Amino acid sequence: MEDLVNQVTARVMAALENPGQQKSCSAEPPCRSGYRHGVGVGVSNRHIHLCAEDLKSLFGSAYKLEKEKELSQPGEFASTAFVDIEKNGRRLEKLRVLGPIRSKTQIELSATDARGLKMQLPVRNSGDISGTPGISIIGPNGRVELAEGCIIASRHLHLTNADAERLGVVANQQVSVRLLGEKSGIIDNVFCRISDNYSFELHIDTDDANAFLQKTGNIAEIII
Amino acid sequence: MEDLVNQVTARVMAALENPGQQKSCSAEPPCRSGYRHGVGVGVSNRHIHLCAEDLKSLFGSAYKLEKEKELSQPGEFASTAFVDIEKNGRRLEKLRVLGPIRSKTQIELSATDARGLKMQLPVRNSGDISGTPGISIIGPNGRVELAEGCIIASRHLHLTNADAERLGVVANQQVSVRLLGEKSGIIDNVFCRISDNYSFELHIDTDDANAFLQKTGNIAEIII
Repeated sequence: MEDLVNQVTARVMAALENPGQQKSCSAEPPCRSGYRHGVGVGVSNRHIHLCAEDLKSLFGSAYKLEKEKELSQPGEFASTAFVDIEKNGRRLEKLRVLGPIRSKTQIELSATDARGLKMQLPVRNSGDISGTPGISIIGPNGRVELAEGCIIASRHLHLTNADAERLGVVANQQVSVRLLGEKSGIIDNVFCRISDNYSFELHIDTDDANAFLQKTGNIAEIII
Repeated sequence: MEDLVNQVTARVMAALENPGQQKSCSAEPPCRSGYRHGVGVGVSNRHIHLCAEDLKSLFGSAYKLEKEKELSQPGEFASTAFVDIEKNGRRLEKLRVLGPIRSKTQIELSATDARGLKMQLPVRNSGDISGTPGISIIGPNGRVELAEGCIIASRHLHLTNADAERLGVVANQQVSVRLLGEKSGIIDNVFCRISDNYSFELHIDTDDANAFLQKTGNIAEIII
């Protein structure tokens, strides 16, 4: 009996002395709640995705997007093209066009950008633009009056199905992520977006990046 | 012996099952670690504090700061005066002068502002400006070449001695604060600044405010 008590006591005391202790994830099978996972940070600057029709209106019917550099998500690229946008008598210049072409035009701005344009923008996942504010887009070849499509992009993680399985998360689950450094903290409401075309990465906008002094390539810590 | 084992086991199991449990604060006497406290949020826009000599150089020797509106901290006010600042060929216009006059000129910018001026700014507490970058200040009556004084202000809490006692914190202690809403989370590195001239409030800059979609007057939650 005393042997058992001693064993239990030793384990219990160790547990009580380290109540917040986190174990590192030793990999498969799926990790349980409480484990932490490192992930690379990707900072998204404001940008625009264009549909084929709006690209024609803004740049001319023969225009094709040219790649300036590849982005971290496979197939995505920063193009050499820029547009201006205008709302409420305010103009924001040199918004970068990202490729490839999408089915709907979408503009991702920070809350700081929105304030500069006197706009109130909703926080939405990419692609979910129904009922969001419109804006005027000005290109070298013409102007488009966009009826809807301006959002503040939700904080999100890109994961492959294997990553999701490893972390034990499902599509659209919200997780929290610890950002490290001189102005550290935890961001909530980070949506899990899962596709085998993705590369494992945390995407935050420039407001989150500047608030936490983060740069692309930093390592953050997912808290499930 | 078995009685003791049962008692210990019951307490231990309860502790192990609720390692992160937070209790609400039922008020005085001084709260212990793990309790939470509501606090009002104050968002600080970029601004400048001027010393008497720089005020003269920028606005003329007879000039006195005029109050536009009082700020939340007793005695502090937004004046009617503005200056421009210049660095690296970039100009930031209409920086508000806060009053009253201070012993040293100090400029508080966000990381977003700093990026616009191509500056790398340290995160510092107000008043701690030794060795920080300088900048050119342009007023209606002249120009000042400031040798040092540009900072990103640390996240901080203003507390009276009574507030500090109630929360169980000491001067310059760093605490964390939970910000609520659609983009919620926790900010660390929040410095406790204690004086009976202060009014209890959390001060964050516009980057933190925009990242968490916070406004002055929101309620946040201090985590000691």
